[in-house]
Amino acid sequence: MDIATVICIIAGVTLVLMAIISNIVLFINFPAMLIVVGGTIGATLMNFPLGDVLGVLKTVKNAFLHKDKPPTDVIEMIVSFATTARREGILALESRAEEASDPFLEKSIHLAVDGTAPELIKDILTTELAFLEERHSLGQGVFIAMGTFAPAFGMIGTLIGLIQMLSTMEDPSTIGAGMAVALLTTLYGAMIANMFCMPIAGKLKVRTRMEMLVKEVIIEGILSIQSGDNPRVVEQKLMAFISPSMRKEQAA
Amino acid sequence: MDIATVICIIAGVTLVLMAIISNIVLFINFPAMLIVVGGTIGATLMNFPLGDVLGVLKTVKNAFLHKDKPPTDVIEMIVSFATTARREGILALESRAEEASDPFLEKSIHLAVDGTAPELIKDILTTELAFLEERHSLGQGVFIAMGTFAPAFGMIGTLIGLIQMLSTMEDPSTIGAGMAVALLTTLYGAMIANMFCMPIAGKLKVRTRMEMLVKEVIIEGILSIQSGDNPRVVEQKLMAFISPSMRKEQAA
Amino acid sequence: MDIATVICIIAGVTLVLMAIISNIVLFINFPAMLIVVGGTIGATLMNFPLGDVLGVLKTVKNAFLHKDKPPTDVIEMIVSFATTARREGILALESRAEEASDPFLEKSIHLAVDGTAPELIKDILTTELAFLEERHSLGQGVFIAMGTFAPAFGMIGTLIGLIQMLSTMEDPSTIGAGMAVALLTTLYGAMIANMFCMPIAGKLKVRTRMEMLVKEVIIEGILSIQSGDNPRVVEQKLMAFISPSMRKEQAA
Amino acid sequence: MDIATVICIIAGVTLVLMAIISNIVLFINFPAMLIVVGGTIGATLMNFPLGDVLGVLKTVKNAFLHKDKPPTDVIEMIVSFATTARREGILALESRAEEASDPFLEKSIHLAVDGTAPELIKDILTTELAFLEERHSLGQGVFIAMGTFAPAFGMIGTLIGLIQMLSTMEDPSTIGAGMAVALLTTLYGAMIANMFCMPIAGKLKVRTRMEMLVKEVIIEGILSIQSGDNPRVVEQKLMAFISPSMRKEQAA
Amino acid sequence: MDIATVICIIAGVTLVLMAIISNIVLFINFPAMLIVVGGTIGATLMNFPLGDVLGVLKTVKNAFLHKDKPPTDVIEMIVSFATTARREGILALESRAEEASDPFLEKSIHLAVDGTAPELIKDILTTELAFLEERHSLGQGVFIAMGTFAPAFGMIGTLIGLIQMLSTMEDPSTIGAGMAVALLTTLYGAMIANMFCMPIAGKLKVRTRMEMLVKEVIIEGILSIQSGDNPRVVEQKLMAFISPSMRKEQAA
Repeated sequence: MDIATVICIIAGVTLVLMAIISNIVLFINFPAMLIVVGGTIGATLMNFPLGDVLGVLKTVKNAFLHKDKPPTDVIEMIVSFATTARREGILALESRAEEASDPFLEKSIHLAVDGTAPELIKDILTTELAFLEERHSLGQGVFIAMGTFAPAFGMIGTLIGLIQMLSTMEDPSTIGAGMAVALLTTLYGAMIANMFCMPIAGKLKVRTRMEMLVKEVIIEGILSIQSGDNPRVVEQKLMAFISPSMRKEQAA
Repeated sequence: MDIATVICIIAGVTLVLMAIISNIVLFINFPAMLIVVGGTIGATLMNFPLGDVLGVLKTVKNAFLHKDKPPTDVIEMIVSFATTARREGILALESRAEEASDPFLEKSIHLAVDGTAPELIKDILTTELAFLEERHSLGQGVFIAMGTFAPAFGMIGTLIGLIQMLSTMEDPSTIGAGMAVALLTTLYGAMIANMFCMPIAGKLKVRTRMEMLVKEVIIEGILSIQSGDNPRVVEQKLMAFISPSMRKEQAA
Repeated sequence: MDIATVICIIAGVTLVLMAIISNIVLFINFPAMLIVVGGTIGATLMNFPLGDVLGVLKTVKNAFLHKDKPPTDVIEMIVSFATTARREGILALESRAEEASDPFLEKSIHLAVDGTAPELIKDILTTELAFLEERHSLGQGVFIAMGTFAPAFGMIGTLIGLIQMLSTMEDPSTIGAGMAVALLTTLYGAMIANMFCMPIAGKLKVRTRMEMLVKEVIIEGILSIQSGDNPRVVEQKLMAFISPSMRKEQAA
Repeated sequence: MDIATVICIIAGVTLVLMAIISNIVLFINFPAMLIVVGGTIGATLMNFPLGDVLGVLKTVKNAFLHKDKPPTDVIEMIVSFATTARREGILALESRAEEASDPFLEKSIHLAVDGTAPELIKDILTTELAFLEERHSLGQGVFIAMGTFAPAFGMIGTLIGLIQMLSTMEDPSTIGAGMAVALLTTLYGAMIANMFCMPIAGKLKVRTRMEMLVKEVIIEGILSIQSGDNPRVVEQKLMAFISPSMRKEQAA
Repeated sequence: MDIATVICIIAGVTLVLMAIISNIVLFINFPAMLIVVGGTIGATLMNFPLGDVLGVLKTVKNAFLHKDKPPTDVIEMIVSFATTARREGILALESRAEEASDPFLEKSIHLAVDGTAPELIKDILTTELAFLEERHSLGQGVFIAMGTFAPAFGMIGTLIGLIQMLSTMEDPSTIGAGMAVALLTTLYGAMIANMFCMPIAGKLKVRTRMEMLVKEVIIEGILSIQSGDNPRVVEQKLMAFISPSMRKEQAA
């Protein structure tokens, strides 16, 4: 995540918080926070194993801090491997395997160098890809669940507040203040969902797609190298995976 | 479900209930409960056969109490079977079949030992897997239906309450109390859905995916053993199904 | 549908109606009913051909009154057919075809006895299955559409009531009564959807899945018989379609 | 669409309008109509090309006025073609091609008579079918979009009305009338969506499915004729596409 | 986008804005705008990389300004290529490649002229197509996300406004004005979503489908040319992709 994005996000969040900040006291209410946060966490932990929920936190840190290698770099490296394989034989890749920045690429090379049958390589790598995608979608699932539970517990909190207020209402002039407090949980729920859970779930989805793309490029590339394709053909095959604008960058 | 999860869930639920507990009398209303619970159960039983609904309760107990064997254990066992089969022939697995902790694995071994054709084994096991998944999704379906009906009957109850209150309204000072009672059913519906039905439906989904994963590992493993694969190849194929972090544990 | 289910449903519905019954007069309003029921029926008939809508009523009657033969019975019958075919040749099934309780099974046997090529049998039966599923899903579609239109027309009725009330409001003391009447259509819409349309749509879905299961068992079984499989193999193949608990019943 | 359907629809719509008709003046407000209709049309035209939106109107006219030929008629015709082809050779179909009521059937026959390879015929016809379905789903898409935009602009109109009313509120006694006017746009939006757009979108879906069914019957039939199947086999294959009740009619 | 569409859209938008314009001062509130716009942009940038969001703006400009070549033009060109290939050999296409208006078509021709194996051409082109579709769906994804976040931040703004107003309410006569201001953010959110984000997302979807259609025509056409098909057969195959009305235009 580059600096421009960070600034934009901070600016966006600030605009929302500015509306609150002048009367910050009105908007802080610990019991209300406990209902929404506690309920959301409780429901999420009923839904997902504790280990998975904690594992997701690490995924999120990666999604925001770790900068993706662009697929063009991976293509460049695979084409260079193809050149080596073409010139010196596929066994020559053994010594270059550790150059691979991606453990998935490294594993693919080892499989190819070991002379594993192409169908078996494809089988192993696509199985790994399928389950990688499933594990990633678990991360999205956790945040989507939280983004669904948070507004629900916001509404539960507001209902609790309204029922208390309405039952004990004696002085009509206090209705306003009671209602304001009751609405706080709905606000908390909406903010947790829309400023936190849903954008993160979306981010994880975008990251997953990008990572899957790189892995698909690797599988196609290794199979192409193993079948003895000309490096130019390898490049042509892999270029089909990326956008024309990325291709121009690559060519430049 | 380990102790940490239990504590977290209890803490979460407590935070929500704490908001209620001080005025618990306000929040207990039997006729309101009967509308929501009765309506939800009635609609669910119109939707699903009684046997299925009762069967689901057992599934839920398992989902929360029964601890899953991690897939690494299953892989370890299959690799050990592969070693036996390689060394002493596939018939030697007969005597080891009852070691299998999973009845699906045991059945697979018997099929392989009986010399059933690989396509037939695959056919039988994947059919069984497909219908197992369908039966599991029935369980989720029951809870998703309940989680949809509960808020709906909550709203029906609130409408009934509002109509009664509004029709007989004479003294405006009683509006508050009447409204509070009317809102109770909405609260009950939202709590049943979000603190009970939806998280359980989610839990069943997570469990189903994990169980399917183990079964897919078993099918792949048995076919690999039957085709006479080297135990190292069997392990490599099966490792593709699990996450790199699990693999490290396994290696350790 | 057995007696236990009926009792549960009646109990559930009663709990909801009890809340109404004491003030039944408040909750009966013919013009309000006409808006919701008339609008729902009108929109449904714009959506689906009259013939289909009427045909659905018959499907519903079957879904609730007709008791499904359990798949184990069908499996038992197919295995018995397999034994006959094995012992006396497939032509011997001709005379047993009318024993088949299911017209689909009967048709399958005739096809097999006629010496139709296995691919053609599979083709004809799976086509029939696919279109049977589509016709069944039409039934669900009608009830889902009604369950969506009913609350919509409930809201339309409430808006009409509110607009009339608000426009002609002179005496604030009549607001309550006017609002109560306006809310009635919303209540009717919610009740029609959640106590009638949605549970029935769900029921039809469950029934369809069960019926499809039986038909898939039949297709697999007939093909297996035709290919000359041993009755034990036929049984093994078909048992994969059903749950382990059903299998135990079968064995017993 | 037969007369019974028309009567039912008119009755349904009338029941809703009757609730309005006595106070019709309250429910007619041109500025409110312009917001909802104008906004819906504007948003729809941003979403879809003008040509497509206009093309959809023709589709709708067909969907309601043009009576479908039942699939049994098409099957009967194809079986008669099969008989001709069997007796006089496939070239004899040339002179009968114009009997085909359906241009898709006519085209299929020409392809078969021209001696086009079966795979190519299947390729061309299924491609045509796939894109026909896509074009039909465009029609549904337009109405679903309109049915989504109409309530949204209804809400926008109500918000505009509420904001104006609340800002300039001086005399509390005018609140009622102002609110009534503000709610009109919501009512218009709900009526446009539920009495017009959604049922028509549903109708188009039902029609598309029926038309696809007929086209699939034609493809299967032509390929069966070309492969020289016995007319009885052709009929058997095609009968699998339709419901048992339709088959009985056919036999009768 | 032709002039008629522009006029219709402007007319539609004007009808909505006219309702506002007379009291324009009531509807402009910068802090409210900042909450909705800032929140939506912030959440969108958390969800998608900055580069993707900026890239989408270019896509939108194209979607509205760039007029699509109709598929019939592409078919005409491919048929003319087929004629050349048939008459002068496929190498003769080399010199005509730059006539191709579409870079995808140009690339396809170069692949065919280079004598690339048909399976490889198909592989490369369909991979490119699949990832092109994925990149396009990213554009839709950005606008759908914005169209979901905008109403959510509209609600958040209204909750903030209501809580402030209710907490500090002293003079009941100011409720109206405060509420009006609070509702402004909901109005902004609804207008951004329904007059901007959702129709654009829909537009991008329609454009993507049209573009995919042209690319599928190109793939089918190049493979058909390479396999040496008669130009008439090429035309027949490609005509199956487009609607009968377009075909008539073509013939004319």
